[in-house]
Amino acid sequence: MERILVGHEHLITDLHAVSEIGKASAGWNRLAYTEAERGAVQYFLDACQKIGLVTRVDSVGNAYARWNGANSDLPVVLCGSHLDTVRNAGPLDGTYGVFAALEAVRTLKEQHVTPYFPLEIVAFACEESSRFGVSTVGSKAVAGHLEADKVRGLMDRDGIVFDEAMRLWGYSFERIPEAVRDDLLIFIELHIEQGPTLENNGEQIGIVTGIAAPTRFQVVICGTASHSGATTMSYRRDALPAAAEFILAAEQSGRAEEGYGTVATVGVCEVFPGAMNVIPGEVRLQVDVRGIEAASKQRVVDELKKSIENICQKRKLEYRWNSLGDEAPVFMNVGLNQLVAQVCSDHQISYRFMPSGAGHDAMNMARLCPSSLIFVPSRGGISHNPAEDTDEEHLRIGVKVLCEVLKRQVLFGGI
Amino acid sequence: MERILVGHEHLITDLHAVSEIGKASAGWNRLAYTEAERGAVQYFLDACQKIGLVTRVDSVGNAYARWNGANSDLPVVLCGSHLDTVRNAGPLDGTYGVFAALEAVRTLKEQHVTPYFPLEIVAFACEESSRFGVSTVGSKAVAGHLEADKVRGLMDRDGIVFDEAMRLWGYSFERIPEAVRDDLLIFIELHIEQGPTLENNGEQIGIVTGIAAPTRFQVVICGTASHSGATTMSYRRDALPAAAEFILAAEQSGRAEEGYGTVATVGVCEVFPGAMNVIPGEVRLQVDVRGIEAASKQRVVDELKKSIENICQKRKLEYRWNSLGDEAPVFMNVGLNQLVAQVCSDHQISYRFMPSGAGHDAMNMARLCPSSLIFVPSRGGISHNPAEDTDEEHLRIGVKVLCEVLKRQVLFGGI
Repeated sequence: MERILVGHEHLITDLHAVSEIGKASAGWNRLAYTEAERGAVQYFLDACQKIGLVTRVDSVGNAYARWNGANSDLPVVLCGSHLDTVRNAGPLDGTYGVFAALEAVRTLKEQHVTPYFPLEIVAFACEESSRFGVSTVGSKAVAGHLEADKVRGLMDRDGIVFDEAMRLWGYSFERIPEAVRDDLLIFIELHIEQGPTLENNGEQIGIVTGIAAPTRFQVVICGTASHSGATTMSYRRDALPAAAEFILAAEQSGRAEEGYGTVATVGVCEVFPGAMNVIPGEVRLQVDVRGIEAASKQRVVDELKKSIENICQKRKLEYRWNSLGDEAPVFMNVGLNQLVAQVCSDHQISYRFMPSGAGHDAMNMARLCPSSLIFVPSRGGISHNPAEDTDEEHLRIGVKVLCEVLKRQVLFGGI
Repeated sequence: MERILVGHEHLITDLHAVSEIGKASAGWNRLAYTEAERGAVQYFLDACQKIGLVTRVDSVGNAYARWNGANSDLPVVLCGSHLDTVRNAGPLDGTYGVFAALEAVRTLKEQHVTPYFPLEIVAFACEESSRFGVSTVGSKAVAGHLEADKVRGLMDRDGIVFDEAMRLWGYSFERIPEAVRDDLLIFIELHIEQGPTLENNGEQIGIVTGIAAPTRFQVVICGTASHSGATTMSYRRDALPAAAEFILAAEQSGRAEEGYGTVATVGVCEVFPGAMNVIPGEVRLQVDVRGIEAASKQRVVDELKKSIENICQKRKLEYRWNSLGDEAPVFMNVGLNQLVAQVCSDHQISYRFMPSGAGHDAMNMARLCPSSLIFVPSRGGISHNPAEDTDEEHLRIGVKVLCEVLKRQVLFGGI
């Protein structure tokens, strides 16, 4: 993190301090509801209290810090993101959005601005799917569409059930309804792009038009495990070369839809039994297809269904196709986005309207209140990786834009 | 195991009893130096003591049972195999060879034969590479070519080091030299074929001419882990499709050498970080190439080296190629094999001379004394799999052949 510890802003100090929590040899590990993640949340709460904000943690672990402003009974302007990470993560991701919001509030306080509407910062719980396979749990709860029965039994790699992981911190599935909010005016999330578009185009801010929610499925290919030395090539029912053909088909189908911004990824490939002297009897793949264009996304899924059918027929193997989720793209608020664009123009900050391939808490919040998602560039487009980074100047510009948008909102109200 | 519990032979009773040790929901798990494997060894020792054999366990965990015969100072006729298994194994593999040898000794005792040479049964330790990645440890020690420094630091999936796993049972790397034997006349191993050749040709016995020791290597492919939703297809450095191309190249190169009996297998494919929303940044493959024909095997290895170079150049990825072993084929004793063939002929048992694609303890023993490896058919050619099975009649014929060979050896001496 030394690379971004330059200058004296609180934001940089905060990012540096939090980056000491959950730091491992290969990147950062602050999986949802772990000690490291809750440690980062505690740091956030302490930092907010220091500038006089009132903090609370809700029934599922979302952490809030509130500035009542001039009219504490009016609807709330909410900003923030999340503090949990994937495995071997980078230092920014959601963490930037949380502390950028705090930095914006600090700046407003230094400028002796009193907000017209109450202003809150949020660190949502369990945004990443890395621990339990389910993402944006905290913001789903806030938006009132977390289906408890679908997630409570999910298990992490250590055999800990979701329900139990929450209970350890005093949160509870029974009290999910308490997390729902009906008092929000707007939601704004600042985030790193996690892709190369802004950098490649030399732009400073991305204003997200829509989020390409993923279609996800598992493909299990079943052959016959047998001895690698004693089984002649033509007699094998090896599940791995079949999986290899499918992986290449997934890549090919994503490339064919590149013009529509659709992507297809096989991120998980588990081989059983996974020994050098045993022909793989089973391979389990997890596939993630994303795009803003529903028709393009559907073409990829259809293509892959045809592909696995052909591969397994040709190779005399069996397969199972299990859907893991199929969400529709979500669009951000046009009015709020126009306001962000106006702020950029007024301050000579270059920007582009763009879709987001990655899912974000803003996806759920957009169903609840007018929401906006603002991107800053990612160096080399790299994210979910220890090399994740953003130029300090870009981090500052993000805070500047958020701050100016909030000033218009909190001072003048309405959108 | 119900399927082979028919009739009243001790062999079937033994196999049934041992199959209760290390039985899991998906096959058997008696990894080397685990409680389950040592439990099977204890059952073997107890069973041998019951028929008056003298038992001992050597400094690396090889278990012996001895019948002194008429001349206890003469070189020893040794028979046996191993009791450890792969993960999710079948019930036979090495276990059959150990208890078939015990059944042969029982039969000789019932026939009131007194052997001219001392006769010993062995259950070798750690034949499978499944726990520590290194195979035939026990017989390597006996043959005097176990290199302690190459194996003592190897670690299993739970982080237990080889050295420590042995020490838990009182065995010791320091005392490896004590396991070496220089008193053997011959070694005979009875084993299931683990391939389909005997079944496909309707033959009862396979007499192994040579064992195709494996050439093994690891290929690590390095790309860039990044966000699956935010990284466009053309910007990816995804290690998994590259691995997929390599897996298909390995299959193709094995098929091209089918006429020479060479096989190529990718049995291990580990993807990092292995999350649905992260593009794989690294894939580690383990490859196993086997054949009796050295030139054919070399063509496969050369082809794969060219292949990974081309794939990574095309995809702008890096790779590492780590050799994990490159052993030369080992040939069985021609005289002893002729004796086995003669026994088969005399008893109207159909047989064929054939190579073994799988490695066996006999591979090490052949460097120490005249050795023979005898196969019985495997149903469907399946092995290292819970469905591993052999017709009971074929199990009986194997014992019959071993018994008759031993009678000629132990009664008349010499080869």
